[in-house]
Amino acid sequence: VVRLCAEASIPVTPRGGGTGLAGGACPAIAPRSIVISLERMRRILALDPIGATITVEAGCVLEEARRAAAEAGLMLCLDHGGAGSSQIGGNLATNAGGNNVLRYGMAREQVLGIEAVLSDGSVLSQLTPLRKNNAGYDLKQLLIGGEGTLALITAATLRLRPAPQIRATACLGLASLDAVLGFFGRARAALGEAISAFELMPRAGLDLHFEHAGSVREPFEPAASWAVLIEADSASRYFDLPRALEELASEALADGLVVAGTIAANDRERQALWRLREGIAEAMIARPSLKGDTAVPIPAIGAFIERATLVAETVLPGAIPVPFGHVGDGNIHFNILPPAGMPAQQFAGCAPGLAAAIEDVALALGGTVSAEHGIGLIRREALTRMRSTTELDLMRRVKRAFDPAHLFNPGKVLVD
Amino acid sequence: VVRLCAEASIPVTPRGGGTGLAGGACPAIAPRSIVISLERMRRILALDPIGATITVEAGCVLEEARRAAAEAGLMLCLDHGGAGSSQIGGNLATNAGGNNVLRYGMAREQVLGIEAVLSDGSVLSQLTPLRKNNAGYDLKQLLIGGEGTLALITAATLRLRPAPQIRATACLGLASLDAVLGFFGRARAALGEAISAFELMPRAGLDLHFEHAGSVREPFEPAASWAVLIEADSASRYFDLPRALEELASEALADGLVVAGTIAANDRERQALWRLREGIAEAMIARPSLKGDTAVPIPAIGAFIERATLVAETVLPGAIPVPFGHVGDGNIHFNILPPAGMPAQQFAGCAPGLAAAIEDVALALGGTVSAEHGIGLIRREALTRMRSTTELDLMRRVKRAFDPAHLFNPGKVLVD
Repeated sequence: VVRLCAEASIPVTPRGGGTGLAGGACPAIAPRSIVISLERMRRILALDPIGATITVEAGCVLEEARRAAAEAGLMLCLDHGGAGSSQIGGNLATNAGGNNVLRYGMAREQVLGIEAVLSDGSVLSQLTPLRKNNAGYDLKQLLIGGEGTLALITAATLRLRPAPQIRATACLGLASLDAVLGFFGRARAALGEAISAFELMPRAGLDLHFEHAGSVREPFEPAASWAVLIEADSASRYFDLPRALEELASEALADGLVVAGTIAANDRERQALWRLREGIAEAMIARPSLKGDTAVPIPAIGAFIERATLVAETVLPGAIPVPFGHVGDGNIHFNILPPAGMPAQQFAGCAPGLAAAIEDVALALGGTVSAEHGIGLIRREALTRMRSTTELDLMRRVKRAFDPAHLFNPGKVLVD
Repeated sequence: VVRLCAEASIPVTPRGGGTGLAGGACPAIAPRSIVISLERMRRILALDPIGATITVEAGCVLEEARRAAAEAGLMLCLDHGGAGSSQIGGNLATNAGGNNVLRYGMAREQVLGIEAVLSDGSVLSQLTPLRKNNAGYDLKQLLIGGEGTLALITAATLRLRPAPQIRATACLGLASLDAVLGFFGRARAALGEAISAFELMPRAGLDLHFEHAGSVREPFEPAASWAVLIEADSASRYFDLPRALEELASEALADGLVVAGTIAANDRERQALWRLREGIAEAMIARPSLKGDTAVPIPAIGAFIERATLVAETVLPGAIPVPFGHVGDGNIHFNILPPAGMPAQQFAGCAPGLAAAIEDVALALGGTVSAEHGIGLIRREALTRMRSTTELDLMRRVKRAFDPAHLFNPGKVLVD
């Protein structure tokens, strides 16, 4: 198909599960293009339990790949809110993040091999399970996070890891936002490499989730202004994580970093805690809100939230900040709800100015405004604020090297 | 300096510690170039204990960066035989591997940010500690493993991890080579994510080391044809690794996978076990031998060693194979010693044919002949055997995009 499109000079927009939040899979208005959906290329091609790898076609849904790995006693260490419908190809093209990046890294770090169609229709065949292969430039690294603008990913070989044998999960109320990094440091010391999630949840986010879900299920009393969802797991039964988490929590309580909390006693309670976290993101998607994808250096998380909160109040008095997310990566999604009673249309008018102001705060702290969702359509202007002309120029040269005719995903990432 | 060289069309060979085994830092005979040594740019620019990152200039010696991290209670998870003199810039340019790739990945996976000089003398400034940053193409990924042919790396920000609090090390004799993958699977099940090294050592390698060192220190009796050095560590004191390793070893002994062995009782004994492993590599460097950098898919390790051994005997009867290295990555260095009594010069004459024959075996099994040492000068022809014309053509286009005037590291990686 790509070869025919190349011959007829018809641009191509590759599309996976369509769960991206930056518009990368949406055809741009100009130039016009055809969409190539990968949804029927969804086979699991191989699963090697000894080498701990899985090879899948690009249209394979993330959750299905995760399930196949789990059935072999292994884990595909890529997971996020869109796992039920996003596809592997899209996950790689956007270098997807998620809740476990702290432990396992982004999508990039799961990839061993890739197969992709180049802009002349030839096939880049690198479906290898090799863990080490310094044989020339690692071309696939550019396709990962290339958002379908450099080549069309058709399959991938991903690394798997032994499935967790033991897991410990808690939701704890912080004494204040200032306590978050101190408690994170303690958690790292107690749980070591096993800490797989450390998610910040503000009161406003939990309230929104309860309102959206139509029921209030406070994880613990008294409610706190800031809660963290912390999880650790290990593939070894010799790691006493329940005790580690219990001692971590009780010491933090005794020392005043934490004011209340609960430790999940079983998988049902664990799921309920994770529902809180996922519920915030889902409620945000369901109603008018400004969604951010900011990250800052970890030590700057507190300053970022404080300054951005002030800025939001200045730009739009009454706006309700809902900063939440991945403390371990510095990736705090600084989302904002409209002031009480403000019509959606009016809020939409304020959103660009509000977004730019929050972005200013993140960038001034050495951060990014495209941490894990990519540039796509909606952050092309923001890209020019984050990257120097040297960088943008080099990106354009890379684009030309891969796709001289501008066949792939027109109008995305780089403003032509 | 680069700008001046660009203006005067004088090619540049970047040079780090000069410990590479593929000749990447050696000036090619033609075209002539000047060497830019990074050895005086060796400062540690920043160390952030909260964010767990270190920023160093490219000439910083790996061991010095590791020491600085350790003093802050953290670990730079990059280590290999050349740590005492290799430099960070060279480690990134070659995407260095080592003994702990199984646990922590290659050099690539430690890199958060890079600063590099481009071929027109402009500076690519990406010295960021951000863990997530999907802001356009991740250009630094090409500089990692680019072997100084695309840009000149001048500094980097690397991720650190909490330093190990607990560690367990053993050297065990296998019942046979066939037992290696079964035992590896058991080790993964018992030690989980904590397993940080799983090194294969053949009898011939230990004998060579003893001969070179002038003393015999058998790790255990009776001696076995194949030994593995296995190590696990954790940053949490709640992980009972000593017990895990003890039970793993005694069960493998009871089931006949392992025939003898020793568990290090203290750090001195641990160092003595690692001396065995490092001693093999050092003895190899010190005397005439054929050094390989092969890797195969993990399930093919046994077949690779068996077939390559047969092939070596066929091509050069009496040659002594010394396959050793990183089972967890499939990266078995299939080194070969000359037949007893053969003069070095005569062996050198046989080496190319022998190397090509071993490479054939690795490639036929879906492997690579440049797993962790790069292409440099000596594997340029091998590169053309490992990569398709589609891949090589795309690499050339990438080279042109970064370095249209062929300024950087002439004559390396790609045959012009």
